[in-house]
Amino acid sequence: MQMTRRKLVLVTGMAGSGKTTLSKIVREAGYKVLTMGDVIRELAKQQGLDPTPENIGMLASEIRKEGPDAVARRCIELLKKGYSNELVFVDGIRSLAEVNTFKEVFDVVLIAIHASPLSRYKRLTRRGRSDDPKSWEEFKERETRELNFGIGNSIASADYMIINDDGIDRLEKNFHEIISKVK
Amino acid sequence: MQMTRRKLVLVTGMAGSGKTTLSKIVREAGYKVLTMGDVIRELAKQQGLDPTPENIGMLASEIRKEGPDAVARRCIELLKKGYSNELVFVDGIRSLAEVNTFKEVFDVVLIAIHASPLSRYKRLTRRGRSDDPKSWEEFKERETRELNFGIGNSIASADYMIINDDGIDRLEKNFHEIISKVK
Repeated sequence: MQMTRRKLVLVTGMAGSGKTTLSKIVREAGYKVLTMGDVIRELAKQQGLDPTPENIGMLASEIRKEGPDAVARRCIELLKKGYSNELVFVDGIRSLAEVNTFKEVFDVVLIAIHASPLSRYKRLTRRGRSDDPKSWEEFKERETRELNFGIGNSIASADYMIINDDGIDRLEKNFHEIISKVK
Repeated sequence: MQMTRRKLVLVTGMAGSGKTTLSKIVREAGYKVLTMGDVIRELAKQQGLDPTPENIGMLASEIRKEGPDAVARRCIELLKKGYSNELVFVDGIRSLAEVNTFKEVFDVVLIAIHASPLSRYKRLTRRGRSDDPKSWEEFKERETRELNFGIGNSIASADYMIINDDGIDRLEKNFHEIISKVK
């Protein structure tokens, strides 16, 4: 007997492409968003660790040692426990290995968000998180690291592509066009 | 002394994303398009070989043995000889190695064309070239081969993304919007 599987929306995109802004729009539209960070914070809680940047960083490296889809597997555990029948978005997909792991359990829709390298560089230098690039060279190094995870393959395989080079109004419009098709 | 470098537009995209249709639109708009196939046909001519599918296939594998950017290097030779100051499009980019090789010589603009796996699968089975997939499994195998070249990284790094899920009129409109920015 085959049961209808729950739909899950996965979101992938390079650093600075606008994933955080998109998540905000998704939440405002009434959907749940689970991020990779949530998964690691949950694990910290389980292990009785304070969610300091050091602990979170340490846990993130530890989880990834288990395999390329380890974060995805933790995410699935959380999804099975904590979310009922609502449509959930998972933000921060980094490889097709992760996508395929989610596909074992869910009816997956993969959305990629794209912005040009120049737009992303400008956003990241403006954002200025401690790990954000300070120069074009640092940006290019970070790009290479991210691409080595295989994120390019998940972007190339997206069911829907959202272009985010033209401001937040356009991003919001693009999102609502796509969500009407996804549902 | 630094000279202003010639601008070159590179086009990347998965099989079935609409690269051939886009090339047609580009040519109709009055621009030159050079494809990887042209490069190999030129080489066949130089070697006095008939451009039969067998010879072209054999030459293509031979060139790629030289390295991941071997086709790009041949392409650059052709561009230096045969094209003056016009804006040229190079179709069929498969990796960032190729993009970076072109960047050594040209002021490169990278355009990616994207369509969902389902759209691309439908197009390829409809197209029915001898090497086009006959089933979803064959399609997925071909996807994996193509992604292993690193094409996902070139798509993720595009300066402009053209979405091609909504028919040729929309594709044409998207192209003209982008070309006005590129020029």
